[in-house]
This record gives sequence, structure tokens and C-alpha cells, in this order.
Amino acid sequence: MMKNSHYKVHFRPGDATVEIEKGKTILDASRKGDLFINALCGGDGTCGKCKVILSSGAVERMPTTHVSETETKRGYVLACSTKVMGDLEVLIPEESKLDKSQILMGDYPQFPGSLAAVSPGAEQFKQNPLVSKLYLELTPPSLDDSMADYERLCQAVMVKTGVPLETLTTNFTVLKRLPTVLRESKWCVTVTLGYRGSSVEILEVQPGDVSSSNYGVAVDVGTTTVVAHLLNLSTAETIDTEATYNSQIKYGDDYIQRIIYADQHDAMEMMQEVLIEDVNYLIGTLVKRNRINIHDINAVVCAGNTVMTHFLLGLDPRNIRREPYLPTASFVPPLRAHVAGVEINRYGLLYTLPCVGAYVGGDISSGVLAVRLDTAEALSLLIDIGTNGEIVLGNKDWMVCCSASAGPSFEGSGISCGMRAAKGAIEKVNIAQHFDVACKVIGDVPPSGICGSGLLDCLANLVRSGVIDRTGNFQKGIETKRLRKTDNGYEFLLVDKSETSTKKDIVLTQADIQNLIRSKAAIYSGISTLLESMNMGVTDIEQVYLAGGFGNYLDIRSAITIGMLPDISVSKINFVGNSSVIGAKMSLFSKDAYEAARTIASKMTYFDLMCNNRYMEEYVSANFLPHTDIEKFPSVADELLV
Amino acid sequence: MMKNSHYKVHFRPGDATVEIEKGKTILDASRKGDLFINALCGGDGTCGKCKVILSSGAVERMPTTHVSETETKRGYVLACSTKVMGDLEVLIPEESKLDKSQILMGDYPQFPGSLAAVSPGAEQFKQNPLVSKLYLELTPPSLDDSMADYERLCQAVMVKTGVPLETLTTNFTVLKRLPTVLRESKWCVTVTLGYRGSSVEILEVQPGDVSSSNYGVAVDVGTTTVVAHLLNLSTAETIDTEATYNSQIKYGDDYIQRIIYADQHDAMEMMQEVLIEDVNYLIGTLVKRNRINIHDINAVVCAGNTVMTHFLLGLDPRNIRREPYLPTASFVPPLRAHVAGVEINRYGLLYTLPCVGAYVGGDISSGVLAVRLDTAEALSLLIDIGTNGEIVLGNKDWMVCCSASAGPSFEGSGISCGMRAAKGAIEKVNIAQHFDVACKVIGDVPPSGICGSGLLDCLANLVRSGVIDRTGNFQKGIETKRLRKTDNGYEFLLVDKSETSTKKDIVLTQADIQNLIRSKAAIYSGISTLLESMNMGVTDIEQVYLAGGFGNYLDIRSAITIGMLPDISVSKINFVGNSSVIGAKMSLFSKDAYEAARTIASKMTYFDLMCNNRYMEEYVSANFLPHTDIEKFPSVADELLV
Repeated sequence: MMKNSHYKVHFRPGDATVEIEKGKTILDASRKGDLFINALCGGDGTCGKCKVILSSGAVERMPTTHVSETETKRGYVLACSTKVMGDLEVLIPEESKLDKSQILMGDYPQFPGSLAAVSPGAEQFKQNPLVSKLYLELTPPSLDDSMADYERLCQAVMVKTGVPLETLTTNFTVLKRLPTVLRESKWCVTVTLGYRGSSVEILEVQPGDVSSSNYGVAVDVGTTTVVAHLLNLSTAETIDTEATYNSQIKYGDDYIQRIIYADQHDAMEMMQEVLIEDVNYLIGTLVKRNRINIHDINAVVCAGNTVMTHFLLGLDPRNIRREPYLPTASFVPPLRAHVAGVEINRYGLLYTLPCVGAYVGGDISSGVLAVRLDTAEALSLLIDIGTNGEIVLGNKDWMVCCSASAGPSFEGSGISCGMRAAKGAIEKVNIAQHFDVACKVIGDVPPSGICGSGLLDCLANLVRSGVIDRTGNFQKGIETKRLRKTDNGYEFLLVDKSETSTKKDIVLTQADIQNLIRSKAAIYSGISTLLESMNMGVTDIEQVYLAGGFGNYLDIRSAITIGMLPDISVSKINFVGNSSVIGAKMSLFSKDAYEAARTIASKMTYFDLMCNNRYMEEYVSANFLPHTDIEKFPSVADELLV
Repeated sequence: MMKNSHYKVHFRPGDATVEIEKGKTILDASRKGDLFINALCGGDGTCGKCKVILSSGAVERMPTTHVSETETKRGYVLACSTKVMGDLEVLIPEESKLDKSQILMGDYPQFPGSLAAVSPGAEQFKQNPLVSKLYLELTPPSLDDSMADYERLCQAVMVKTGVPLETLTTNFTVLKRLPTVLRESKWCVTVTLGYRGSSVEILEVQPGDVSSSNYGVAVDVGTTTVVAHLLNLSTAETIDTEATYNSQIKYGDDYIQRIIYADQHDAMEMMQEVLIEDVNYLIGTLVKRNRINIHDINAVVCAGNTVMTHFLLGLDPRNIRREPYLPTASFVPPLRAHVAGVEINRYGLLYTLPCVGAYVGGDISSGVLAVRLDTAEALSLLIDIGTNGEIVLGNKDWMVCCSASAGPSFEGSGISCGMRAAKGAIEKVNIAQHFDVACKVIGDVPPSGICGSGLLDCLANLVRSGVIDRTGNFQKGIETKRLRKTDNGYEFLLVDKSETSTKKDIVLTQADIQNLIRSKAAIYSGISTLLESMNMGVTDIEQVYLAGGFGNYLDIRSAITIGMLPDISVSKINFVGNSSVIGAKMSLFSKDAYEAARTIASKMTYFDLMCNNRYMEEYVSANFLPHTDIEKFPSVADELLV
């Protein structure tokens, strides 16, 4: 055998050809070509999500149970478990692709983009952006007024802003250029002021009045998606939004897998680079589309979970997964954006929102800020459902929080026909009389799978219609062809292969149902544990804010029916969308909001559920539809006629 | 003629050979070879100080009146006005060399090096260095105490130092290494804390207890000399001192010439580089000699006049010499030393002391701090005599200051046999009966010229002995061969050529005397103008502090006799030596002292003498020995029997 042979892998659709070393996997080739193939397990061969169709070429397959005989005949292989041994033709089927068209970018679409509209809570803050531009007409010097250039400038800034002189600083580029800029502009200049906590930095001094050219970007750095909003900081308007998948997905679907990958491959820097590239891609796209000079982007505020914040800043995240689960830093003061690799104005600043601990990050501080839970009179609950379910309970006097390991089943992982909330995903399911199934599909196309909100709806309707009992098991004696037995147990047919884009049946298996029940139980027990820890009950909750990827599409009643949410009035429950990016925007628009986020993070008490016996007991009881103790769900008892 | 021919110039003593383009001057060649030739005028051909002896080789001479026929016969040429047209042999005579053996390095030699000994005023400050090292034994984390690494560290710093958490910052290297350093050191670390005004930066975190390895360097950055003191910041001891000539001397003797040079040659960066090289040379020498790791030098404090501070930091000084005479910045906050090119710990800080304005710099703020004029009950006067004479008058309630253009005659420039206070310089002169002259020479060698203190002494003794009258003119009818007529008027012979190292007579000419009178008149009128501006008189002065290059060698009585200092009791006058470096040391040892220097600079009111009519009148009256109004000098009236 020759060493180091290279072969060409041609991917369709998209027509990308990747040259790769013999013996590498098709997944490796797709990563090299920056193609997003679903690989929830990170390439372990365990999730079975990375199925591709091999049209031609020599490969070596590792054994797998994820590809059926029928599929094998059609050419399906697992990309992660198939080695390239010759030139290949590969087709990436719809269900294995990651599609960014359905990333939750928005906040409240019903409001136009003004400061007050960022969030109802934003009104409480004065518009006072983290980086501001100020036009100054300085008094020209004379023999009777021979104050130095820099002090003259600082004096004028102080008079106009009230910033105390002793907290004003600057950088060397400003100092070096100052005499020339001041004289060439006849003492009329625009200063860019960057908030740095205990000090305010004069980031730049430009000739003339350019105070209206001041932009910032708020970013929600999620484990799965990265969402950016471009803001005009002088008018407090949202100009545009853009989103992409987090390119780290290639190295693991959840952040623990990515820490392991980075640790084992000595790839901490690479992990930072790919994430920064995503942020730069978003900023670059927004800037080009809106014909803004990148030099006028002066600030970026990022909200992310603790691990994403670590990767973004290049901080070591490894102790987050080792007992006693410590971040390197919960809060990092603002830094020069270009130091982290973020491409904006050379002197622009990068802000990250403060984390509470290893498992409750800046995205949650940001969410609490967005709904102003920290100033609420009413006892409020914020639930942010993503890969984990972070929960905050409290009001203006106290806040407790936890992170429930809901697992990625709501993102489609671990579910046989599960997929992300992308085009072709079933997002609503109705089971009518005679077990007639009606589905609503994202993008109104033939379905290719089912996403989180669809799964919840499906589960609720299965129990309502009596197809499953309250343990989640399929009931015997149900007269429908949809319920059928396979080698792996029973399954319920949602859409026949004749109507799907994949030409495969979309089903929900017994195993899928148990997975979903475990996930909803984790969230319910998290809520319940926080309530009990404060000696409170469900009836004490006055407001619920539902945030996160599937918030906007979720049927609340279904969520209560299956016992994911406690049995409270639907009117108390509000969707807040991507509360992480909302809080980031509020911070960008107002330094008071940014400081409020710091206070929020320091005020929240974190409960570790993994070491909590009460949580474990509650979790076991919640592994039922809706709960072993039906008295906790009176409205569901009525609904299900229990 | 061939273009771009190069020739070799061989300099003695020192045996340096420099290759240089045809047509460049011998001074250019000496600069290229880093040889210090006295060129007070910066190479204009006007000062006549750069005489060298041409042993062999082809040159092209430009006309000059500074080289006599006799000198020409002996081979003397002006280095600045002689072009290299072939390979040359050049001898640099003693009097044209710059010798650093006599730079005033010390502060109070009578005190050993402890904090209290830095200056009597230093006792008022708590030892609290600008950069400190702190050994911390952190509580290891546990499941019940899962504070992040950085916050854990900050908490411990706050508990031990009282620094509020919100003012603590750090750099990325600390954050990146923190998890590893903390765990490898079993949570026992030494943190280096750098004071940054409104914040305190954790500069470094090292494993174990290395808190005793913390050093700093205080530097007086003078126009002519650069003086450095190495300090142990953990014990507040002065370890060693070193000095060198400011390498910018090559480009002009006074700072105005250097600004012009830098402006015309687009050489701002080069001017910074040569100055930083001097500072690095001093630090490097101190570190090597005392076997200290340069990594343990964590702070450098520089005190310099406004122009030197600008050059040091790479700031544009050009507006200092253009009306209305503005610095780019009077005060620059601490910065990373390596950003300016200063080679110490990679994260060490560079502090510069604050300037009052274009002509009263950080060296004077430092001097005021050193003598604690700013807290004095008594009305005090600080006079720092260098190229200019800066004067501060005041007490704890108010301070006024000015800069008198004394000119460089006290440094030997513009005086026919003048030289700096170096080996071979006459520093004391006595004229006894029969006009016998006794001289004290620095280094007890045959004299080669006369320095500032010698010139003052000489002038006082000439008027005491009646050789000159109170206008400074030689008296007719004086019977001594020492007074003789030349083509350029009368001169007084101090040392015969048979006794000098240069084999030339050392004389004081009529022109020299008028130069010296103008210089002393400038200082006196400065003092007088400040007093009058406050409606005060000489008798109100309770304390005088004399600082600067020739302070330690000056005969105070002579200075009063000629009317440089006002007629007050000699007992009120104190020598304080290099008060600039003393203040820098105090600042390094105590951040309270550093802050006091900032307050001092902001409290001082600057009087511009150039636009001051009263000063001009006073200056004209003071162009007399001691003054046209002898009643202002009663003790001198007695002495001279006027």
C-alpha cells in the first residue's frame, strides 16, 4: 500500500469537492469542506444522525446498527463510520443537513426596532450605549489658556458627559495622533468613548462631526447557533439580524463533547478560532448588507453559556467538566475586540455578559435582564430550553437558578426521526378522531422529520388520544394501523414514506417516548426543586417566561399536559424568544443594563441538581405523564379524565 | 566622481572605526559610531565645542571662526563642519568628550537607602509600592464552594488588600494560565498587583511564594543625563544606581534643538528609540550587576521635563515650541512598559510623572514632591538649575512656578572654556591677593575647562577682587598679567596652558562674563517675578531648595554675590541634589506619593515669563552684579563695600 494517498470526495448538493487522505472518514471530509452534516454525537457512531448516500466509490465501513438493510441497499452509510478508500460521490440527504433558515434570531417581532422595543424591560434604562460617540467643539488654545491637548480634550468630555476626569483613560494611538487631528480639524472632533467599568477609554478621536456613525453588534453565542443583531448606537435602532450555526458543531453537539475534543486534540485555540470566525462572518455579512464601514462598529456584546464564553475568549474551559466544576472566570472585563480576533474598529471593545457558574452562563444573566426578573414584584420563572434547560426563579428580592440536564431530545437528538427546527420539520401535530394525524411542517414542504415542539405536541396528543398510557407505554388494543410492531418494539406512524421528502416513514418509537419523558421530567423537577428550596409551590408562580430555540413554536397546553411545565394558567406564560440576544442588545444600548447584568449574575444563587437528593426523587416521580402524583396537575386530570 | 563612495574614519582614543558615505561630516561619523562628542548646538557650527584633531586624511572644511590659526596648525577642525573626503584618523580631545563620571546620580548620600531615607518628606507616605507582590493561600474549591478561579483569586486579593472587587482587572495571559497555575501550585500563589489609577491590574500570577522578588527602577530622564535607581520594592531599599548621557545629545544639546531635528528629519520614532535604549541600558546594567532576573522588574517610574516625557512615550512634542506652547499631554496614565519599548517584565508598568505645562515638567512635580513643598507650612522656594532654571514658590496652600531661560551657560555652553561638570572641570575658583588663582578640579587632574559651579565662583571672585566692575566689565588699571587684551577684547587667565590637559589656556572672556550675567539674571528675575506676583518679597522666603546638576558643588555665597540667588541667609538654603529622581523613587515606593505628584502638578500655577513685562523689566535690572538696585542685596553691599 502506498502511504499518504489522497482521494477526492465530491459532495452533492452544493458541488463541493474535498481532497482527503486515504482512511479518513466521510465526516472528516465534510468537516474539511465546511459542510454541515448533523453529527450530534461528534462522530462517535452512536447517534446515527450523519447518514449520507454513497453514490459511487470504494469505502471501508465500520459495523453499525443505525443503518437498516433497506437503507444499506439504497446506499446509506454513516459518514462518521465510513472510511474513504477511493474517489467518492456522496449525497447529503435533507435530514442530515444543518439548515440555518430556522434559527431563532428575533426577539419580539411585533415591536419595531427602538430601544423601548428591545424588550418591555429596556424602557427602565436610559439610552447610554457602552460605546458612544460625542461631537466636541473645543476652545482653541491661547497664551492665556495653554492646557495640553489631551487634558483639553478630557476637560471637554467631562463637561459634556459628567465622566470624572480621573476615570478617563485613552490608548496610545489617540495620544500620538491627537495634536495633528485637533489642529487639522480646527479643534472640532468626534470622540469615541468606551465604557470599561471603573474607567472610560477614549477609543478614537476623529476630525469633524461623525457622531452619527456609531454601530454595535449584539451576539447570542449559542452551543448550536450564533445570532447577531446590528444596532445603530446613536439612534438605538436595530438595523438587521443574521444567524449561523456554531461551526464548533463539527467537534461535538454539546459543549461537554467539545471540551473533550479540544482537550484531547490540544485544540483550544482552534476552538476559539472557529467560533470567532462565525462571529466575524456574521458581522461581515451585516456590515456588507447594510453598507456600513466596519471601522464604525465600535462594540460587540456577547451573551453565551459559560463554555461558549470561555471558548470565545480563549479561556481554558476544562475544569467546567471536572469536579467541583469551575469556570476559569465568571466575568471578564471588556477587552479590545481584536485581541480575541473579532474584526471591528481596531480599538473597539468586546464585552461578554457575566456567568453565574459552570452551568448557568451569560445567556441566562442576559435573559433575566431581558425580562427584568431582577426587578419584578411578582414571583417569576424564566425557563430557557436549549440543549440544557436553565431555570431561574425569583423576583426583585432574590433569585435561584439551576440547570436541568434535559438532554438534546428537544433538538431532535436521540429521537429516531428527530431533527432541529429547520425547514421540513414537523412543528405541530394533531391527532384527531380515528387517529387521523395532521402535521404542520416548517416551510410547508414534505416533512423530513420532527422537531422539539412537534415532539411535545405529539406526545401530548398520544396520551390525550389514549394511544399511550401515563407511563408512556403504547396501550394494547388500540385499533389503528399507525401503531405497529417492529423488531425494536412498538412505534407510531406519523407520516407515511410516500408523503415524506426522505421517502422514509416518520415515526415515534417507544424508545423516543421514554427519551422525551426523561427530558420533560428533568425540566419539571428543576422547577419543582427550586420552588421547594424556597418553600414555595406552583400556585405561588405569578409569571413564566419561556425562552430559547423552540419557545416561539411550542404549544403551552401540550407542555402542561405532558408535565414539562407545572399546571398553571396558560395566561401567566409568556414567550420571550431569544432572551439571550435581547439582554445583549439592552446592554449594548445602556451601560446601566450592562451593570445590571453583573448585579444579576452576582445575586443569583445556583443550585446544583446533580448532587441534590430532592431533585432525584422529584425526577423519578416526574417520569410519568404528567406526574405520578396527578393531584399536582388538576387541569390535566380533568383533561385526561383520570 | 563616483557616487556613494564610502570611507573609513578611525577614532582615538577608543579605537572605533566607522564606515561612512563621502561628504558626511566627522560628527555624523561619530554619531554613527555612538561616540559622544560635545556638540551643544546640535551640529550647526555655532558652538565650537566639537573640536577634534585630524591626524590624517582628506577633508573638506567649511569656514569657521571657532578654530584659531594656531589650532588649525595643530590639526584642530570642527567635527560638525568638516566633510569626510577620504579615510581619516581622528583624535577626540578630552575637552570635546562627554564623560559620565560626574553625572549627579545620588539623592542624599548621607542617608542609607531605606524608604524614610529617600527624602525627609518620604516619611509622610505609607510604604505601598505602585507594583506590589502578594502571597496568597487560596481556599481550594469544593462542591459547596464553586466560585470560578478568577473570582476566587480576586476575592482573596480583596480580603488581603482591601482593593474593591470592581476596581480589580487583569490581562489575558493571567486568565489563560490561571487554571493551570492555581492547580499546579495547590492554590498557593503570588500575585503581582499594578496600580493603574482608577483600577488595579493583576499583572501576573506565579506559583508559590515569590513575593520577595519585586523590583522597580526610578529614572530621572534629563535632557543631558539619564539617571536610574534600582529599588527593592518589598523592602523599600535602594540597591544600586547608574547613569549615562542622554543619547539624544547627538541631535541637539537642548530639547528645542532636538524637536527641530526630529521634525526636520522625520525622526520622532528614532528619538524615542535612542532614549528608550538609554533607559534599557541602565536597567540592563543594574540588573546584571546585581544578579536580578529582569522578569522581576515590575515597574519603572520616569520623571523628566515635558519634552523628554514626550520623546520617551513617543508623543508629538512639536507644539511645545509653537505658540501657544502646548504639550500633547501633561499626564499620561500608566502603560505597559514594553509598549514603549522598555524591557522589563512583559506585563510590567511604566509610569511617568505629571507635567505642569510645556516648560515645567514631571521632573519639577517630582522635585516638589521630594521636598514636600506642597505640604510645607513655611513659604518655600525650589530652584532646579539645568539647561533651564525651573522655579517653584509656595507652600501647602498654593504654588506658582516658572521656567527661566537661563541658557546652557551653567553647563558650559556659550562659554569659551566652559564644559560640563566632568573630570577635568574646574569646580571651585579662589582669587586671592595679588590675583593669585587657586582652582579645584574634578578628579584632581590637570584641568581641561571650567564647569557651572566654577564659573559662578570665578565671577563672584572677579567682582570681589575688583577685576570686574558691577556691570561685568573688566576694570582698567588692574595690575596683573592675567588680564590681557586679545583681538576679541579682554580676557582673564585662570590656568596657563602649561598646566592644562589641553595645552591651551583656560580663560574667562568679556563675552563669557556677559553670558553668565544673563543666565544668573534670568534665574533671579524668575524668582523675583513669582514673589511679586504673590505680593511678596525676599524676606518672606523661609526655605530654599536648590536642586539640579550643579547644586551639590555650588558655593551659595558666590551665587548670592553675583545676584543669582536673592540675598537671604545661607542657613535657609538646602541642597537637595537630584530631586527629580528622589520624587520618582518616592512614587515607586508609595502610590500615595504618586497620586500626590498628580495633585501637585494640577495645583501649580504656571507663569509664562516670556510674555511677562514685569519679568522683562526685572531681567534688565538684574543684568548687573548683583543688581542695579544694590539695596536688594544688603549683605553684598557690605561685602563689596558699595
